[in-house]
Amino acid sequence: MNFTIQNALIAGEDDYTTVDVQVVEGIISAIAPGLDVVGEAIEGKNKLLLPGFVNAHTHSSEMWQRGIMSMFPLELWLAELYDFAPLDIEKVYLSALGTAVETLLSGGTSVVDHLVLIPGKEFETIATAVRAYKEVGIRAFVAPLIQDESLTAGMPSGESQQTHEPYFRSTAATLEIIEEAVKQFHRPEEGISIVTAPTGIQLCTDALFEGCAELSDKYNLCRHSHLLETKAQEKLAQEKYGCTAVEHLKRIGYLDYRTSLAHCVHLTDKDIEILAATKSTVVHNPLSNLRLGSGIAPILKYRQAGVNVSFGCDGASSNDSQDLLEAIKIGSILHNVTDLDYQHWITPRQSVEMAALGGAKGLNMADKVGSLCVDKEADLVLYDLTSLSLLPRTDPIGLLVLGRPTNIVDSAWVNGKQVVKDGQVTTIDVDNLRQELFKHSEWSTKRKSKTVAEIEAHYRSVMGL
Amino acid sequence: MNFTIQNALIAGEDDYTTVDVQVVEGIISAIAPGLDVVGEAIEGKNKLLLPGFVNAHTHSSEMWQRGIMSMFPLELWLAELYDFAPLDIEKVYLSALGTAVETLLSGGTSVVDHLVLIPGKEFETIATAVRAYKEVGIRAFVAPLIQDESLTAGMPSGESQQTHEPYFRSTAATLEIIEEAVKQFHRPEEGISIVTAPTGIQLCTDALFEGCAELSDKYNLCRHSHLLETKAQEKLAQEKYGCTAVEHLKRIGYLDYRTSLAHCVHLTDKDIEILAATKSTVVHNPLSNLRLGSGIAPILKYRQAGVNVSFGCDGASSNDSQDLLEAIKIGSILHNVTDLDYQHWITPRQSVEMAALGGAKGLNMADKVGSLCVDKEADLVLYDLTSLSLLPRTDPIGLLVLGRPTNIVDSAWVNGKQVVKDGQVTTIDVDNLRQELFKHSEWSTKRKSKTVAEIEAHYRSVMGL
Repeated sequence: MNFTIQNALIAGEDDYTTVDVQVVEGIISAIAPGLDVVGEAIEGKNKLLLPGFVNAHTHSSEMWQRGIMSMFPLELWLAELYDFAPLDIEKVYLSALGTAVETLLSGGTSVVDHLVLIPGKEFETIATAVRAYKEVGIRAFVAPLIQDESLTAGMPSGESQQTHEPYFRSTAATLEIIEEAVKQFHRPEEGISIVTAPTGIQLCTDALFEGCAELSDKYNLCRHSHLLETKAQEKLAQEKYGCTAVEHLKRIGYLDYRTSLAHCVHLTDKDIEILAATKSTVVHNPLSNLRLGSGIAPILKYRQAGVNVSFGCDGASSNDSQDLLEAIKIGSILHNVTDLDYQHWITPRQSVEMAALGGAKGLNMADKVGSLCVDKEADLVLYDLTSLSLLPRTDPIGLLVLGRPTNIVDSAWVNGKQVVKDGQVTTIDVDNLRQELFKHSEWSTKRKSKTVAEIEAHYRSVMGL
Repeated sequence: MNFTIQNALIAGEDDYTTVDVQVVEGIISAIAPGLDVVGEAIEGKNKLLLPGFVNAHTHSSEMWQRGIMSMFPLELWLAELYDFAPLDIEKVYLSALGTAVETLLSGGTSVVDHLVLIPGKEFETIATAVRAYKEVGIRAFVAPLIQDESLTAGMPSGESQQTHEPYFRSTAATLEIIEEAVKQFHRPEEGISIVTAPTGIQLCTDALFEGCAELSDKYNLCRHSHLLETKAQEKLAQEKYGCTAVEHLKRIGYLDYRTSLAHCVHLTDKDIEILAATKSTVVHNPLSNLRLGSGIAPILKYRQAGVNVSFGCDGASSNDSQDLLEAIKIGSILHNVTDLDYQHWITPRQSVEMAALGGAKGLNMADKVGSLCVDKEADLVLYDLTSLSLLPRTDPIGLLVLGRPTNIVDSAWVNGKQVVKDGQVTTIDVDNLRQELFKHSEWSTKRKSKTVAEIEAHYRSVMGL
């Protein structure tokens, strides 16, 4: 497990230097030019070494519906998604592998999987995703997606009186599943963490959030949730609480330094102050926010307010990929149209810091990973700067972030274990994965969501369409 | 040159069918299942066949500065760009090759190169780009970028009185260069067209636009220009003409069915009516518009008004890539945040039509290419649907447009001539190109634009920053 990367380019304050990097027992032990070779020698010449990025929000099983979802806003899109969600454990396994592979090959060494649970097979779903991530060797934060209200409760009622079916599983039973998963699978030192992850205020009671916060305190778990992704959710929060969702989540104690919140598109200035004060992290999912028409999250404002921001791909049905470099690029340049003053725009070096250290902070592991420092764990990615997509030679980080790099990850290590070598994932047979994904699917175009047909008229009326 | 693609998937009205496609002497001669093989048999199984797309606006030599340009709005960005623009004909050649290769490998069979001319070597620059495009075999529209006012004239003066150096070359001399280029190189039937292309109202006199319109009429050339890319240009048009730029261009006769206009971010509703009435084409460059903070072009409005829209990558210094599929994806989903009514959003099938037929219309060749029809010229692309990035199998066009496809172009033909086979460009040695790009460049981070230092204070003051 010991190795020495020789002659790699690394980023200095505002330039690059060529160094060797020694890794001993998974830990970066030295960074300097001309080091002795410890363990395996790795050729770093014409390569850029960066800390691994974090894919800070996704839903792995959405891979089964990428490319086919209708052009809908979140509320209708979710109805379609659930009408056709895979109910097969084998598919959970394959899409977790696929998500891990695409994340690794686009610079990510950690993934937060806000994992959709198959009803009645909740524990098995979690166990299967854990197995897949262990096989690939990516650092995984498995965040079982839970709720305790039924789908229709997630839409604002507007003027009308709406009643909703009770959710099929009790809040207590749901919390028991999570606690059992923690006991069985939560092994941060082995690269698998369980995260508490109510889907969001739109489908969860206070009791569920509070139960999750208790588990988080008891086992030192990270906390995750969707937050104010759409205008409809903004309306719903006012209907439900008479205040903003952020104000409410603060009041019930869900926000802290271990809390990461996906989307955060529709927040007030006061909400932003609350996120900063509680040290919560915003996970920016730019492609999903565009695809679903959710809006442009005010990321420049978050940064100015001192809120930590990281990047996520979101599930592949709303993206429709798991290319983390794409999310980083679009999540960086998108905001230039929201502020005329270019001095506020995100630079490529800032993007890299958000994706690596920002991601680590949001998962309460900034002391362990997220930057190239001696004594940190070796979550590293080595990029091939001789790839056509990174030529001609200019600023390597600029090319990586602002370009459209393909086939550029030469090597990757998670906690010092090599998981990508010569551009290929070494831990699983990706060609076999490709064949399995092919076999378990078929091309199709014609499908209609029954639930969308039922709820679309109400949605249009509430949203004034 | 004759071939038959067997068992390829093609798009029907709202589904897919499996067919054979015969191509005889560069022309699609039959499309139907179970055809006799004419010429070479091409395996189309598990592949999607689409008409080639058009990269409808780029500047090839910007490839030399991709990844390194500061995060600036257009006006300052241009100053930096020109301070470091390559002045070397060999570089023009290599970046034209690179632009062609990246376009082909992301589904484009045509490219519009709004070609920056090296001062004093204008004709040589054009000849060199033409040579590169002929070698690669992409269908090229070489649009020499011309102006007859100096760079500082491109900024609004605000309250101040500004005087500008005269441009170093006369309007007449510039028009002579273009006419000579037409005589020597304009051979549409051989895949090379010359296009008249004043850079835009911000740096061109009426005499230049009118001279170009005359050449266009005389030789039946397409017309191209930048249009209202930034707020600064919107201000400048009012200062210069007392009306919008579109109103002025209509008045001086530059707009017609052969005119394609890059960007079109800041147009009034009346301007949109003028574009529709004159049958002008909007070229949407979403990545550049984001990167430079220019704004979100009102593409949904254009489509509703019946204006033809196509996609461009724009130059690689403001993108910073030449991946046409990326431009198509972002240029499609970006607009969902501008209109709450999802019924107006662009579907993947519409995106494909904009990229292929929309591109062809903007270049006055919709009768020849842009769709899979018998008697059209064979500008075709065959996508490998077994690529990991296009799996699991769902809707092939959805995966292609909304995903992040990599390594998916199996084959491509331009006018019936194969230019990509088994994922590799067949006409030039791409590995050699890669080495040449490497050799002619070096990694750097520290450079400062002298011109930006001179003009930045004025820019900030005029823009109220």
